[in-house]
Amino acid sequence: MARVLTSQADDFPRWYQDLVAKAELADNGPVRGTMVIRPAGYAIWERMQAGMDARIKAAGAQNAYFPLFIPESYLRREAQHVEGFAPELAVVTHGGGKELAEPVVVRPTSETVIGEFMAKWVDSYRDLPLLLNQWANVVRWELRPRILLRTTEFLWQEGHTAHVDEADAHDYARRILHEVYEDLMVKLLAMPVLVGRKTARERFAGATSTYTLEGMMRDGKALQMGTSHELGQNFARAFDIAFTGVSGARELAWTTSWGTSTRMLGGLIMCHGDDNGLRVPPALAPVQVDLMVVKDGDGVAATAAKLRDELAQAGVRVALDDRVDTAFGRRAVDAELKGYPVRVEIGPRDLAAGNVVLVRRIPGTKTPIPIADLTRAVTAAMEEDQQALYDSALASRLERTVEVSTVEEAIEASATGWAKVPWSAVGAHGEAQANASGVTVRCL
Amino acid sequence: MARVLTSQADDFPRWYQDLVAKAELADNGPVRGTMVIRPAGYAIWERMQAGMDARIKAAGAQNAYFPLFIPESYLRREAQHVEGFAPELAVVTHGGGKELAEPVVVRPTSETVIGEFMAKWVDSYRDLPLLLNQWANVVRWELRPRILLRTTEFLWQEGHTAHVDEADAHDYARRILHEVYEDLMVKLLAMPVLVGRKTARERFAGATSTYTLEGMMRDGKALQMGTSHELGQNFARAFDIAFTGVSGARELAWTTSWGTSTRMLGGLIMCHGDDNGLRVPPALAPVQVDLMVVKDGDGVAATAAKLRDELAQAGVRVALDDRVDTAFGRRAVDAELKGYPVRVEIGPRDLAAGNVVLVRRIPGTKTPIPIADLTRAVTAAMEEDQQALYDSALASRLERTVEVSTVEEAIEASATGWAKVPWSAVGAHGEAQANASGVTVRCL
Ligand SMILES: [Zn+2]
Ligand SMILES: [Zn+2]
Repeated sequence: MARVLTSQADDFPRWYQDLVAKAELADNGPVRGTMVIRPAGYAIWERMQAGMDARIKAAGAQNAYFPLFIPESYLRREAQHVEGFAPELAVVTHGGGKELAEPVVVRPTSETVIGEFMAKWVDSYRDLPLLLNQWANVVRWELRPRILLRTTEFLWQEGHTAHVDEADAHDYARRILHEVYEDLMVKLLAMPVLVGRKTARERFAGATSTYTLEGMMRDGKALQMGTSHELGQNFARAFDIAFTGVSGARELAWTTSWGTSTRMLGGLIMCHGDDNGLRVPPALAPVQVDLMVVKDGDGVAATAAKLRDELAQAGVRVALDDRVDTAFGRRAVDAELKGYPVRVEIGPRDLAAGNVVLVRRIPGTKTPIPIADLTRAVTAAMEEDQQALYDSALASRLERTVEVSTVEEAIEASATGWAKVPWSAVGAHGEAQANASGVTVRCL
Repeated sequence: MARVLTSQADDFPRWYQDLVAKAELADNGPVRGTMVIRPAGYAIWERMQAGMDARIKAAGAQNAYFPLFIPESYLRREAQHVEGFAPELAVVTHGGGKELAEPVVVRPTSETVIGEFMAKWVDSYRDLPLLLNQWANVVRWELRPRILLRTTEFLWQEGHTAHVDEADAHDYARRILHEVYEDLMVKLLAMPVLVGRKTARERFAGATSTYTLEGMMRDGKALQMGTSHELGQNFARAFDIAFTGVSGARELAWTTSWGTSTRMLGGLIMCHGDDNGLRVPPALAPVQVDLMVVKDGDGVAATAAKLRDELAQAGVRVALDDRVDTAFGRRAVDAELKGYPVRVEIGPRDLAAGNVVLVRRIPGTKTPIPIADLTRAVTAAMEEDQQALYDSALASRLERTVEVSTVEEAIEASATGWAKVPWSAVGAHGEAQANASGVTVRCL
């Protein structure tokens, strides 16, 4: 098979760009740093969203929608927050053909505007916890954009909650971290994320504590897949989110925020993709089975239609590829690129023997099987391969993580993977030293 | 019961604002004309989205996502389009702390940027039809904003398709109109929309033909609930969406676009709401049954929990209201305001007789029924009331629509409802005359 992608070993960033383009996942937008998410990429994102949304609702939060435009003055109310975001803001100065009296910023995140409304809606301890989530686009001007990973505009969910005390806020930030984010990444995305806390240096602007989920990509680097923040009373103070407590005294609430974005799609590609293309975990895949008519004739089309219905009936997400006037080789390469977990090849020769060919993208096997066994074989393959993808990502992560005892050793180890080093051997000084060598402390 | 809303007869716009605020559906945002969609409103919108999304996919379109920011120059490529939207644009002039070389506009709609990408992706007639849809926020600066109806930022879906010829584009624009939009509005929203074509004067900026769905509100006025446009070859010419046809010749595609927005939520409120609050069609309602514990004791709580599980088991969306320390009257008023189709009141007295009370929001009835009958009674009530809501809206529309033969009569009739007048008696001149009296020709 002709190689269609740069190999990962040759040039990982180039491999990533090639794959995103050739699997038709996304494209650069006309304004620098923006992107178009194409149908093949968006369908995966939609399934991530659905899985996330169900888990968020199960954790008790309700969806709402807050405005894209935020008065500039709101951002200034929380000092660390404005300092963190000011360099990345997009500013609207004209609206409806006129210059605006006060410029508005395009939200980089919504703590401020949501804080303003929480203050209106919260009155008594009975109104707490207030658990909100929104699905939205946000804008952070990027100097070095990378498609799906670091883009000027991206799609995300952002949760914002207010609680009666620090303990409740703490518990909820961690509940989202584990029951929502970690659960989705492990079970749906088949990614063995490392879950922990960030250093003070790497914290969200305005947070007292930031939790992170870090995935290891196939080049040994870490990618932050999501974060959950305890915001202490910083935003409650800035926006006066106050309530009458059980005792009758007026108190400030404790807030949290937490987010995951289209960057997860970039992480999925770099965690599971190989030199032939994407590999989508079966549980996540919009198309789980690509039913490919190799060549027409001898009842092939009728059998294909029958098998499609049978698989769909069994709850399998199946797509029929009967473009027999396109060369089979080209379609097979395309199916590998797109990473459909299972391909079923149906051709006159195999059919005459009562067989179809089951091609599994994850282990890379190709086996003839009797037609009558198809649904059972597909279901079993998907279950096995979901687990196999997770196991192999975990094995690779463990293999590429070394335990070291000094910052110098950690910097050296980070050239090929992760280093686990006692925080007592690092400290703020060691962290600055590591940062100077392009190495970050990701997770405590 | 104390009146909590201004009555519709007294002041319809005021009634609408009162209801949106008191049912906690939406709130004004800090930047003029923007809005916050609160959880109770967003939950209804989410169910409209789900119903719409399923129908759009069934019509063969795929979801994708295109950037929020569009280069100003794109809008200028289609002359009528820029003329139509220029007065409503929000313009970003600063990004990442610097003045931008070319200002970018916040999308008012995405024909232009999607046209640019269709041109890249379409090469041969085999690539057509190209059927895309996106769920997004758009911005149109509003001078006279009205919450949910006309807001500077709103949420919508916008479909964009490219076809080999005019007939195919025409058929698809009409297929969306009927199979997606009309079907959803009639079946899910219980709204008897009038479906037709707009006059040249009312057409979308850049369209050759605009189809519309008009709902009648309870003040007798029309509200546009959705539109579907044939764009001819206007955008294909501006963005060079060209393909090699069957004959081998290079041809321009024919495009369509179509959209529905959060305005549907405003339409739903004004079509079905009454002086006691919202009335949500049972098929749409996020909460179909509000299970209300009137007073605790004598096994009420246990029965309520059991009934909740039983209803949920039967596929009914049920919420339990056991806030017995809040006055029953206040909770009942709130349930009416929110428009839950069915309320089930459970109290010790009825329970002793083996009964609960079934309160139906749409007919306004209140009947004790045996506990064992609850699920069956609820299901039957919801089916009947979904139909009743539609029937009553239709009857009211018919009653308030008069057939007239001149523009003068039409203007007079429009004070209380709609007028049906032969287009031959109107024409472009008559339309201008009607517009001068604040009357628009909505639907041909
Ligand atoms: Zn955990
Ligand atoms: Zn129709």
